[in-house]
Amino acid sequence: MPEIRKNKITGEFVILAPERAKRPHDFVSTKKDAPLPQHSPNCPLCTGNEHMTPPETFRYPGSGPWSIRCVPNKFSALSPEGELWWKSEGIKTSMAGVGLHEVLVETSRHDLCIALMQDEEVKNIVRAYHNRFLAFHKDPRVEQVILFKNHGTAAGTSLEHAHSQIVGIPITPTQIRYRYEDAHRYFMDNGRCLLCSTLDDELSDGKRVVVESTHFAAFIPYAAMSPFHMWIFPKRHSGCFGDATVEELDDLAVVLKKVLRMLYIGLENPDFNYSLRTATPAEAGSRHLHWYIAIIPRVTKTAGFELGTGMRINPSLPEASAEFLRGVDISL
Amino acid sequence: MPEIRKNKITGEFVILAPERAKRPHDFVSTKKDAPLPQHSPNCPLCTGNEHMTPPETFRYPGSGPWSIRCVPNKFSALSPEGELWWKSEGIKTSMAGVGLHEVLVETSRHDLCIALMQDEEVKNIVRAYHNRFLAFHKDPRVEQVILFKNHGTAAGTSLEHAHSQIVGIPITPTQIRYRYEDAHRYFMDNGRCLLCSTLDDELSDGKRVVVESTHFAAFIPYAAMSPFHMWIFPKRHSGCFGDATVEELDDLAVVLKKVLRMLYIGLENPDFNYSLRTATPAEAGSRHLHWYIAIIPRVTKTAGFELGTGMRINPSLPEASAEFLRGVDISL
Repeated sequence: MPEIRKNKITGEFVILAPERAKRPHDFVSTKKDAPLPQHSPNCPLCTGNEHMTPPETFRYPGSGPWSIRCVPNKFSALSPEGELWWKSEGIKTSMAGVGLHEVLVETSRHDLCIALMQDEEVKNIVRAYHNRFLAFHKDPRVEQVILFKNHGTAAGTSLEHAHSQIVGIPITPTQIRYRYEDAHRYFMDNGRCLLCSTLDDELSDGKRVVVESTHFAAFIPYAAMSPFHMWIFPKRHSGCFGDATVEELDDLAVVLKKVLRMLYIGLENPDFNYSLRTATPAEAGSRHLHWYIAIIPRVTKTAGFELGTGMRINPSLPEASAEFLRGVDISL
Repeated sequence: MPEIRKNKITGEFVILAPERAKRPHDFVSTKKDAPLPQHSPNCPLCTGNEHMTPPETFRYPGSGPWSIRCVPNKFSALSPEGELWWKSEGIKTSMAGVGLHEVLVETSRHDLCIALMQDEEVKNIVRAYHNRFLAFHKDPRVEQVILFKNHGTAAGTSLEHAHSQIVGIPITPTQIRYRYEDAHRYFMDNGRCLLCSTLDDELSDGKRVVVESTHFAAFIPYAAMSPFHMWIFPKRHSGCFGDATVEELDDLAVVLKKVLRMLYIGLENPDFNYSLRTATPAEAGSRHLHWYIAIIPRVTKTAGFELGTGMRINPSLPEASAEFLRGVDISL
């Protein structure tokens, strides 16, 4: 019997369709990419090609000339110059497309990705995220900072060299505002953070938990929108990623690597996106906001039903997917 | 300079990114599909293979044994049997996955699509949509009817034989509810339907209009979420597609064919989805709800930014896309 579940955090329903349901290993990637070289002469993110990017804004040294670099995106979605204007005329409302857009090069090596890195390397990436997140919020035009990663062509990336992107936008997207409103309503009805409640429920239930550490838990949500859709929640209630301690950041790095390694080995390097969902530093103390990371493997396609409703049809069972990932041997 | 525009009907912002902007002909499809045969022996939607589908629920006769058939979806997302139950326990809310899911075979010919059909054939399809829409709403478990089409693999279809899908779901998706609330708020602030206001604005502006007929207008919205994202609005205010007259349905068919033909010829048969956005028959008389059709060519990919915000980055200008489509010669 199919089941519809409601995701109280995204606000949306999902149809878990057993008639279409597949077993976890049906989602194993079938693309067989050639192994990547350690260095690619034409890659703008490789060492020796630093002149191909705009001047860097941030660097971590490493065994090579650098281990992590941040550079403004050459094909920025927003202009870093200019004032924020707002125009409203009849049904037309527009504003200046000003903001910041950087590329964070995660490694000098062309052939690495987080699943294959040493823990120390991933810790530096997460610390660099934290640095840029706070730096972006110093720009008064920036209202929200969106940090995300596209891995593989189905996830929308055009460069194979491992990188993340950070965008500082001058508005709050309506989807985010709606989720904040829902979280606020939940708090006012229950006197408790919706995400804290969800985390308690997931940990006591246990069936959908993939990794648990001192400070974080990674799980497949009860109403996961797609196969292997995963969330990493900090256990300590806090609205803002910028508020995380160094100890928490390091712990997050280890958890992030573990789950990405489970996907890499278990599903044979699937394409995926992840994004950071966080309030601003000014909202860190909010009682109802709680930051987290969402990981979405791109193993299914959206079609007209999804476009017409905002709902998803998920042809997998969250409990079975979590069990599958827990069983993946990620030892080196 | 990039510009952010707000779409008051979807509620969401879109970044129009001129740094990434492409000219309309950059979106011409590069896939070169082999021409389809008139009949495909293994296709479950071809004549002679009617036994491969569940028993049909609707048929239009034609020059062959039939011209249009509706059949229950063999891989239904929802169960047609069973009562609707609702369960809520802590953060977990679920309900029975009951509902209706049919496939509407648009033609007995394996090689046709709406862009290549005679007007009369398209009129029959739109009349069949109307018939099934009203029939689905007779089931008391059905709260919303979602009618959509997936054309091409990027749009999520697995069968190349032209077909649409109709799903009767027992809930109102949250995205739809939010849009209704926004439309209601607009009415209460302005004493006017948001979609009527938008249509007036688009018609008087004219720059984004693609086709105008007696009863409909097709245009690329001011804040189009992706290249060639198109809307077809009825000029007569009505909340529900089921309320359309035969004259209106026939006119809609001609407009739908025209715009799909512009895409087919101008962009060389791109993959696309369309979906019907409509309230229920009970809400047909609503002052603030207004049905329409949304067409979304799948010529760009969504990535981590879109997943993390619900917003889109549109690398095209709606005005330029509309001008391009108006210039396509669709004469036979």
